[in-house]
Amino acid sequence: MDVSEFFLKLLLIIISAKFFAEVFIYLHLPSVLGEVIAGIIIGPSLLGFIEPDATFHLLAEIGILLLLFEVGLETDVGQIIKVGIQSTLVAITGVATPAAAGFWVSYHWFGLDMIPSLFIGGTMVATSIGITVRVLVDLKKRHTKVSQIVIGAAVMDDVIGVVVLAVLYDFAVKGTVSIADTARVMFFIAVFLVLAPIIAKLFVPTMAKLSSVSKTKGMIPALIVSLILGLAVISHKVGAPEILGSFAAGLALARRFFLPLGATIEHYSHEMAEKIEESVKPIIELFVPLFFVMVGASINFKVIDITSGEFWGFAGILTVIAIITKMTSGLWVRGGWNRKLSTGIAMVPRGEVGLIFAEVGKRNKIFDETTYAVIIFVVAFTTLFAPLALKYVMKDDDKEPF
Amino acid sequence: MDVSEFFLKLLLIIISAKFFAEVFIYLHLPSVLGEVIAGIIIGPSLLGFIEPDATFHLLAEIGILLLLFEVGLETDVGQIIKVGIQSTLVAITGVATPAAAGFWVSYHWFGLDMIPSLFIGGTMVATSIGITVRVLVDLKKRHTKVSQIVIGAAVMDDVIGVVVLAVLYDFAVKGTVSIADTARVMFFIAVFLVLAPIIAKLFVPTMAKLSSVSKTKGMIPALIVSLILGLAVISHKVGAPEILGSFAAGLALARRFFLPLGATIEHYSHEMAEKIEESVKPIIELFVPLFFVMVGASINFKVIDITSGEFWGFAGILTVIAIITKMTSGLWVRGGWNRKLSTGIAMVPRGEVGLIFAEVGKRNKIFDETTYAVIIFVVAFTTLFAPLALKYVMKDDDKEPF
Repeated sequence: MDVSEFFLKLLLIIISAKFFAEVFIYLHLPSVLGEVIAGIIIGPSLLGFIEPDATFHLLAEIGILLLLFEVGLETDVGQIIKVGIQSTLVAITGVATPAAAGFWVSYHWFGLDMIPSLFIGGTMVATSIGITVRVLVDLKKRHTKVSQIVIGAAVMDDVIGVVVLAVLYDFAVKGTVSIADTARVMFFIAVFLVLAPIIAKLFVPTMAKLSSVSKTKGMIPALIVSLILGLAVISHKVGAPEILGSFAAGLALARRFFLPLGATIEHYSHEMAEKIEESVKPIIELFVPLFFVMVGASINFKVIDITSGEFWGFAGILTVIAIITKMTSGLWVRGGWNRKLSTGIAMVPRGEVGLIFAEVGKRNKIFDETTYAVIIFVVAFTTLFAPLALKYVMKDDDKEPF
Repeated sequence: MDVSEFFLKLLLIIISAKFFAEVFIYLHLPSVLGEVIAGIIIGPSLLGFIEPDATFHLLAEIGILLLLFEVGLETDVGQIIKVGIQSTLVAITGVATPAAAGFWVSYHWFGLDMIPSLFIGGTMVATSIGITVRVLVDLKKRHTKVSQIVIGAAVMDDVIGVVVLAVLYDFAVKGTVSIADTARVMFFIAVFLVLAPIIAKLFVPTMAKLSSVSKTKGMIPALIVSLILGLAVISHKVGAPEILGSFAAGLALARRFFLPLGATIEHYSHEMAEKIEESVKPIIELFVPLFFVMVGASINFKVIDITSGEFWGFAGILTVIAIITKMTSGLWVRGGWNRKLSTGIAMVPRGEVGLIFAEVGKRNKIFDETTYAVIIFVVAFTTLFAPLALKYVMKDDDKEPF
């Protein structure tokens, strides 16, 4: 790809993302859906202007890191802990039920082999943290109780998804699974999630000092982006998804973050917090839509053979299972049925995480073409369905923060 | 390159750029030199942590686009036109003298063939607009008369460099040069340079309108970046370097841009101009250092065989010629010898443009290994020498805007 071609494609991505986002808001629909659909339209499914190639994929990954950073930044750790048990129950149910059902149907009803059936179960596991969070922001429901529960649960699901993928991949390649290894990874991830924000927090006074003595331009954005990238890399080394690192970076810089046991560290100034938000906002706003456009561009509807009855049978049943089983996770939420239903639907989109399972499965010849097409359909349907459904289900009376 | 590796390398680039930039400022040296040296240190010359691969190359190109946009934004078209004749004379002399001397020495003294000698002459042509502009900004001399002349001349040199490269490449491949084609390209570029800012300016009211009715976040950065990319792509189609497009975009949005014949278009508000600067600044500050680090990383000193007498003879003479011939261009500047000398030195760095010639020459087997190494040395020396020399030569009494 030469430079000029890259610029042209980047231009197409930015313009189409903004155009469809605006159109969707005009239609009172979540703008994230507009961005995904922009990707479907300009991607290989329809016009074929862009392809999810290496460079755009990497830029999109910066986008999701920054989105999770922003989510962390606006998260009140106290509130997340308060709903921690509900989040955990939602996450576990949202993993176990879809995985079991997905495996069972594939293995027993459709007669797939053990490994592909397990991979289909794995694909059912993950909640797309990206789509879920953006929909809640788009619907201006980011600070409701349901959102706090869902964000906690979606982050856990994302972690579990990555671990499940690693375990299943090992099983597919080596034929065995080391429970000790998996337990160790889970332990490291838990330690990371607890320690990372605290350690990152310890750097904040240094960062404030550095940015005040700095004589170069742009020290704050450079330091923030470095913190995000650094924690993302450590997170990956620990065995967790990169976004866990950027989420931790956001938590550490959140205004309402306090250290346990009465916070002995000087809290950074209101002024500094504002400077941070101001100088990172445009970067976040530029990169985040790239991610969702690339999710759309990664869904290639052309792999689907719409004349195949076999495809429609499998895809239809798996989609129904993917939606209903995830929705059972909402039953744990305290409060009215509306809250349970909203939580359940918010957990439905498989998005980027489902696509990773699909790609790994296809590349390693675990999925044949039909199965791959079925997974793409399930991912696409749940990704597009949940934002729409959530808009009509989430009641305004739940808008109040708890 | 997997995602985590990409994040780690990006982190290294950002941190080393900031670190060396700060150190250089502390030593009262231009920070751009720190960034280039960061690239030399972490690049293939020394530590080999990063390589100038496709993705980083493309990100760096966004950096130089944004830098030229910023330069355009702070340019007063009236002043540029006022010194237009001096700029043009500086540009033409800064092209003709080094090209002729570089060719003559290579062909007659060192007995190279016609084509490589012509390519060496071509490499001598271009002034690194990136290095030159950043040094002037670093030295806080951006708004002096010398700067106005140099920026105009460097932009012209960059355009001429791209045209010369295209012509020489054609000559190397086909053996002939179409003067009609070249004249047409030059004509298109001239038309583009005059029309692009005016046409871009016509979009400003629409952009202001769009951003005020927009219901998505980040409309302003998206529109600005789109304008920059759009004009860069058109500029490339016309046959000019992409940066000419982003420079034109900057000119169009500059506060002091007025249309000829008394400006009938409503000038956009002070508030809008501030919003634009605020929301694009962090993006510019993040990307620009990437460019200079990648310039450093693209200079691979390992290609140089320091034990070769042949190398040192050729490299030494060519470097002296590269410096002295460019400095003659300063003679056209009205005013004292200090102004003439400052202008001449500011035109010396070959930087990224020289590297492009070197790469094209190497890839097409026009340069053998020694010649390639000589070119790399000349580019590196002029790039590192000029910022240093300029610091000591440019007098404070020229700080005043004219």
